[in-house]
Amino acid sequence: MTENCLFCGIVAGSVPSTQVASNERAIAFMDINPATAGHLLVVPRAHSTDLREADAEDLTAATLLAQSLVSRVIERLDADGANLLSCIGATAWQSVFHTHLHVVPRYEDDPLQLPWHPTPGDMEKIQATAARLV
Amino acid sequence: MTENCLFCGIVAGSVPSTQVASNERAIAFMDINPATAGHLLVVPRAHSTDLREADAEDLTAATLLAQSLVSRVIERLDADGANLLSCIGATAWQSVFHTHLHVVPRYEDDPLQLPWHPTPGDMEKIQATAARLV
Ligand SMILES: [Zn+2]
Ligand SMILES: [Zn+2]
Repeated sequence: MTENCLFCGIVAGSVPSTQVASNERAIAFMDINPATAGHLLVVPRAHSTDLREADAEDLTAATLLAQSLVSRVIERLDADGANLLSCIGATAWQSVFHTHLHVVPRYEDDPLQLPWHPTPGDMEKIQATAARLV
Repeated sequence: MTENCLFCGIVAGSVPSTQVASNERAIAFMDINPATAGHLLVVPRAHSTDLREADAEDLTAATLLAQSLVSRVIERLDADGANLLSCIGATAWQSVFHTHLHVVPRYEDDPLQLPWHPTPGDMEKIQATAARLV
């Protein structure tokens, strides 16, 4: 754990989050600034600044967890597809410097463009969506 | 190999590509419609329609190859960062239905937005960039 790292705090439980899935090396929780309904983040439990520095086993565990969540959002949220995205460096839109994979459900009529401009989502809606994913 | 699959053709060598790296289960080659200079695609050698259907070992191999290429584009192309992206379904901008990961180098002044509108790159420039990555 790295002090002052938001995602290390979420992994440790000292920062609240809505967790929907996990494995031995990674956890998945709702993005509170969702680009689309059901937007999830998958993070290795161990700290690394970005994907370049992630341990191979941690990255593998995070990727396989993300893969299962891609299927899950499509099945359970009636999404039409999904994007898996990782941002390496501020220039590439990274804003939290703990390796993470975005799982962004896609819907036929969604207006997603990147970069999106993160704005806080409605927490009740986010919790209701999370309940369909656990 | 699946007939009429462009990326299966590239894996088999029956369709030309500019390959820059490979491992036992995945290959990486230049995107001929680059979103930014050095845009690469990483594909498992085995066919699957999208990331949901990729075998865990194939997806792991592709991810670890992509990870090494993220570092390589940043080091060798003086990129400032990179995005790793996978598109699952046409709604999520997937256009070739063989699992692939985009490695998109990012530069401070690049105008990247997604969706990008793929347009053919200058093949000489693409080859020159590839030569810095092999
Ligand atoms: Zn951290
Ligand atoms: Zn194929």
